[in-house]
Amino acid sequence: MVARSFTLGELAERTGGRVEGDLAVRVSRTATLKLAGAGDIAFLSNPKYRADVAASAAAAFILAEGNAGLTSKPRLVHANPYACFARVAALLDTRPPQVAGIHPAAVVDPSVQLGAGVSVGANTVVGAGAQIGAGSCLYPNVTIYPGVKIGRNAIIHSGAVIGSDGFGFAPEDGKWVKIPQTATVVIGDDVEIGAGTTIDRGALDDTVIEDGVKLDNQIQVGHNVRIGAHSALAGCVGIAGSAVIGRHCTVGGGAIILGHLTIADHVHVTAGSLVTKSISAAGNYGASLPAMANREWLKNAAHLRHLDLMEARLRSLEAAMQASVRHAALAGSADPATTTPVSTK
Amino acid sequence: MVARSFTLGELAERTGGRVEGDLAVRVSRTATLKLAGAGDIAFLSNPKYRADVAASAAAAFILAEGNAGLTSKPRLVHANPYACFARVAALLDTRPPQVAGIHPAAVVDPSVQLGAGVSVGANTVVGAGAQIGAGSCLYPNVTIYPGVKIGRNAIIHSGAVIGSDGFGFAPEDGKWVKIPQTATVVIGDDVEIGAGTTIDRGALDDTVIEDGVKLDNQIQVGHNVRIGAHSALAGCVGIAGSAVIGRHCTVGGGAIILGHLTIADHVHVTAGSLVTKSISAAGNYGASLPAMANREWLKNAAHLRHLDLMEARLRSLEAAMQASVRHAALAGSADPATTTPVSTK
Amino acid sequence: MVARSFTLGELAERTGGRVEGDLAVRVSRTATLKLAGAGDIAFLSNPKYRADVAASAAAAFILAEGNAGLTSKPRLVHANPYACFARVAALLDTRPPQVAGIHPAAVVDPSVQLGAGVSVGANTVVGAGAQIGAGSCLYPNVTIYPGVKIGRNAIIHSGAVIGSDGFGFAPEDGKWVKIPQTATVVIGDDVEIGAGTTIDRGALDDTVIEDGVKLDNQIQVGHNVRIGAHSALAGCVGIAGSAVIGRHCTVGGGAIILGHLTIADHVHVTAGSLVTKSISAAGNYGASLPAMANREWLKNAAHLRHLDLMEARLRSLEAAMQASVRHAALAGSADPATTTPVSTK
Repeated sequence: MVARSFTLGELAERTGGRVEGDLAVRVSRTATLKLAGAGDIAFLSNPKYRADVAASAAAAFILAEGNAGLTSKPRLVHANPYACFARVAALLDTRPPQVAGIHPAAVVDPSVQLGAGVSVGANTVVGAGAQIGAGSCLYPNVTIYPGVKIGRNAIIHSGAVIGSDGFGFAPEDGKWVKIPQTATVVIGDDVEIGAGTTIDRGALDDTVIEDGVKLDNQIQVGHNVRIGAHSALAGCVGIAGSAVIGRHCTVGGGAIILGHLTIADHVHVTAGSLVTKSISAAGNYGASLPAMANREWLKNAAHLRHLDLMEARLRSLEAAMQASVRHAALAGSADPATTTPVSTK
Repeated sequence: MVARSFTLGELAERTGGRVEGDLAVRVSRTATLKLAGAGDIAFLSNPKYRADVAASAAAAFILAEGNAGLTSKPRLVHANPYACFARVAALLDTRPPQVAGIHPAAVVDPSVQLGAGVSVGANTVVGAGAQIGAGSCLYPNVTIYPGVKIGRNAIIHSGAVIGSDGFGFAPEDGKWVKIPQTATVVIGDDVEIGAGTTIDRGALDDTVIEDGVKLDNQIQVGHNVRIGAHSALAGCVGIAGSAVIGRHCTVGGGAIILGHLTIADHVHVTAGSLVTKSISAAGNYGASLPAMANREWLKNAAHLRHLDLMEARLRSLEAAMQASVRHAALAGSADPATTTPVSTK
Repeated sequence: MVARSFTLGELAERTGGRVEGDLAVRVSRTATLKLAGAGDIAFLSNPKYRADVAASAAAAFILAEGNAGLTSKPRLVHANPYACFARVAALLDTRPPQVAGIHPAAVVDPSVQLGAGVSVGANTVVGAGAQIGAGSCLYPNVTIYPGVKIGRNAIIHSGAVIGSDGFGFAPEDGKWVKIPQTATVVIGDDVEIGAGTTIDRGALDDTVIEDGVKLDNQIQVGHNVRIGAHSALAGCVGIAGSAVIGRHCTVGGGAIILGHLTIADHVHVTAGSLVTKSISAAGNYGASLPAMANREWLKNAAHLRHLDLMEARLRSLEAAMQASVRHAALAGSADPATTTPVSTK
């Protein structure tokens, strides 16, 4: 693995930033502010690490316009330092491709349509009639069921399963009758699918993952789901059947989204939340209980089972207070100080 | 793939329904009410789609007795339209089998007992001494550990792992001593296991999945668990060791069921719930926080940490109110209106 | 499979316990108290099963010092009966190894460094430059990405994926730019990794799993995470990127731990919890809603959305009560009984 290097000036040309300081400084590696050393370029995107810039031993930095003054060392100033870093890291990445061509131990049905430059890892299985678009990379031990359609430049990590049967059963006499899952999965261009993620084929209509969607590891996508373009879902998310998720959404880790609902574009669901009904407006949504010391939680949790009673007690007190205030007024002892209005529900 | 078709009369004979309208109308495909067209048969099981029947371009419908009047087009009237649809869909499903016979790239130990008509997909591994009942289908990339017993007509999807070691360790001097997991997994007849689902072998007693159980994708079943016949678990459910789940139960997606507890027959656990103790009576159980706008949630969440204090404040107010009412009575100023009793905990 | 047997005296020698009763009683199998019979040795570690000892048909028992009197049958008395049982079970375990040597259907890159006695199951894929320490066992259908380093005596179950890309994307113009994940995963000695568990490679710094860590099934470990030595995580746990978990921690099933936080040594997180910020002191942490009858939960859940309003009503009542008490005092009708102080927030 030969190191590759660029001058800061070359990186500015390729990423659209501008340089402050020595254009000729040469870097060959990206690194975190804390661990960077000679020959490394580090970046600041999270403001809480501002103080680390001055202390960093990096040879150069990628900084936002407002942070250009944090160091006098050479820096590449960019409107979007994080995206700039992503591109610089790609330029400096000299690792050989992890999967190249069709591995002899891959099992690709002869009827599969493979685009140009597709790579398929060892022991990956691609079923009859599937389509894999140009430039896509399937890591080892992936399973693509028959008939699944995948666009261009997909990255599908190991253990992912695309096109398994949706979970559809009709109850009859205490048993379950299987409903054939006759549709398929259609995946757009530039989609990445994480390790161990599963996407079920549709029952009657296809399950659809639109362009640019990024799915982390161990996500479960039920049948007939649609995920809008450029949405990103973190690990361990579960999406029940027939849910429709908008474009440019994000879903935090471990969230569960129930089925047969619709989520608007630009909705952000916080980690660990449970979405039980449609969301029609962009914004941030969630509900979760952050962990605390058990002792403290148990004290509060006991009352959670009795909120109904607490509310009844509150209502009863309000009635008593209203009566008491009214009585005092009638008795001629009214004092403005006592007539504080009592809020009612 | 040659289309297959049936007249409505033929379908009625095979499913036990009755026809209203033209017995001879011929259908070759199942479709949703919205997307159905000529030659398609659509069904209504969810009442919220009633209005879609009249608007549908389907050639025929499957309807419940009470909905037979929703259209004047030919319809197959059935006591259980969803199960009827499942059977019709199976009759019209002309896809070739996705797995047929033992794939040459499957790795089946010579000691495995395979029933008649078992199919094993590419790169599936079946360990020594395992038993797979007649008619069972193992998709590609499944792993069956040695000694696992699977009944007839199982469907096991890709990425599933059956018989891995249970998570058993004894703490000793700050380290963990592994407990050999010497029992196995025993699976009944007519069980379906979803993609990426894992079922651990027992430590001393077997892990048991009874007849007709349906497990969705990415379910984790710990060691020594028993799941009763005809129960159905949705995706991402986790069941800790030694839990016993009854027959005809359902568990919603993402629910977690702790270990060493017993759940009665006909219990239904809602999605995203955490079951922490035994449930002895049939019914619906759960507890979860539905997602809402973050702004709204954060306002309420702040108080969740202080329920204990809120309850103390309430108690204090109740005491003050009781005292105040008593004092007013003693002072001779009692008015029936002020003596509204204050509820106590 | 030939049974192996030991006398109780031999087991005491090998485990460091002492025998009460007949040293010469011979056992060949471990069993639960309920199912044990002739030739079996059973153990008691959970006090709730104390009553089962007397009723058990086991030939011998493993008991803690304080429980030695629960039976008059031969018993091996040990300071840590559960760990003692683990060792006895290992001595009596006569199953052949489930994986032996490098299976011909494994795909191990020629550049991989394999320690002595490594076993690799069928269809497991080990990428270029990976290192697997002596005595490690990789079950079938495991995927080890290029460059991953695994210590000695690892046990990695089927479906596990180690070294997949971390979930790193920079947003730019409504799309996602992939950040190359250039670091790797480094795993210490004596680590066990469950079926379907996924561990992502680091972006710039390695993901690190220290010695003696035990990971159950279907755990997701994000990039740059560090898990301290001898911690044990139950099934379905998700850990977001750059979280640092201490040594000797335990995490209950289904818990989600957010990223960029630090958890101290000896922290125990309860099942189903969501850890949203750093935890700096040892102890038990969590927050969860135990499932209850839906009817009961729904009554309480309605108020959860209105805690903010409940608190305002409480505050309003407190103000009214204070005013009323003050007024009564000013009016000269003060009675000590009515001046119960009202707690304020």
